[in-house]
Amino acid sequence: MPLAPTTPASLVDQAIAGMRALLESGEWEVGTRVPPEPALAAALGVSRNTVREAVKALAHLGLLQVRRGDGTYVAATTDMQALMRKQLARVDIAHLLEVRHAIEVRAAALAAERRTAADLASMDAIMDRRRQAVLDGDGPAFIDADVDFHCAVVAAAHNPLLVELYDGLVETLRASIEHPGAADVLAAEHDAVLDAIRAGDPAVAATASADLLDHVVP
Amino acid sequence: MPLAPTTPASLVDQAIAGMRALLESGEWEVGTRVPPEPALAAALGVSRNTVREAVKALAHLGLLQVRRGDGTYVAATTDMQALMRKQLARVDIAHLLEVRHAIEVRAAALAAERRTAADLASMDAIMDRRRQAVLDGDGPAFIDADVDFHCAVVAAAHNPLLVELYDGLVETLRASIEHPGAADVLAAEHDAVLDAIRAGDPAVAATASADLLDHVVP
Repeated sequence: MPLAPTTPASLVDQAIAGMRALLESGEWEVGTRVPPEPALAAALGVSRNTVREAVKALAHLGLLQVRRGDGTYVAATTDMQALMRKQLARVDIAHLLEVRHAIEVRAAALAAERRTAADLASMDAIMDRRRQAVLDGDGPAFIDADVDFHCAVVAAAHNPLLVELYDGLVETLRASIEHPGAADVLAAEHDAVLDAIRAGDPAVAATASADLLDHVVP
Repeated sequence: MPLAPTTPASLVDQAIAGMRALLESGEWEVGTRVPPEPALAAALGVSRNTVREAVKALAHLGLLQVRRGDGTYVAATTDMQALMRKQLARVDIAHLLEVRHAIEVRAAALAAERRTAADLASMDAIMDRRRQAVLDGDGPAFIDADVDFHCAVVAAAHNPLLVELYDGLVETLRASIEHPGAADVLAAEHDAVLDAIRAGDPAVAATASADLLDHVVP
């Protein structure tokens, strides 16, 4: 196989890869503005034209959003997240919750089989934060902890494809979570999921997860 | 809000939309070669430069593949399919089957609630084809019918997001299906899923679907 000659296209690919690394590392967060073209060109060691083409490609992918006369912003940090955002703009929240149910119930069962001591410690700490947020009446902290718990269940299944699909949904789900006010009516349901995962019982974990999600009304 | 002026970028977007329409309509199938630049430019009513940029964008998305000195080929027909192909190249088949399990078990339960008479007629016809293929010893026809059955279950859930996710997996799953030889050991399991969907029993449909998938060894 002949070596491919160095072409502008491959420089663009390098610039894309460099920006993807910044997105995936968390250095570029969703909603933040990316540095201007000259700074990017200097940082990536390529021309401004190359940067412009790479930004255009990432905008087509839905990772960046170019706002005319304003700047370029991070719209998503992974392809799956970008794609889900595009899909989610035209799907019902009810359909989204059905996909969430599919992923999360299966993940709970797998988590019961595969969770490590570190997974359990992390989930315990998250549940402590969730309880404390209710006591403090701290809505944003509650929503963060709630989302973190559901992500932790999926992470404990140790299946990167499930994690990626769930990550694609989670920002939209976050917007649908309500602050519980003085009483957290779903505390017992969350505890039941965690107890079953801790006990290593996949069937009970799946049932508890389905029961929890059945309480989440679209 | 001021009207955006017509720019090369928006012509590129139009060219991309035109090519997407050909991909989604089935006119451009996976694996086929797309027409050369001049023909595309004429068909889309844009310049060759615009076509080139649109092809580049679709290649970045994974929908087209540019093979140097050969031509441009269709790699996927939807963004989700393209993204899944990229993901699937680096995930275990075991992880893929877990995602399949998550989607399909939930879809079977929803299908039991939502299937129409047309869904049932279609599934019956597919099962007839599946049985006939075994009798005929026709491996390719068997695999087609088997894949069609699983897609039909997901379609009967009437959730476009589930369909899109499943479509992303299905071509990789197809490659994992073996021809059953003289006896179809999973015929009863398939019948059980269809019977539960016909009976409108979500719990039995989910159990039957999980039972079927538990027999599919990675």
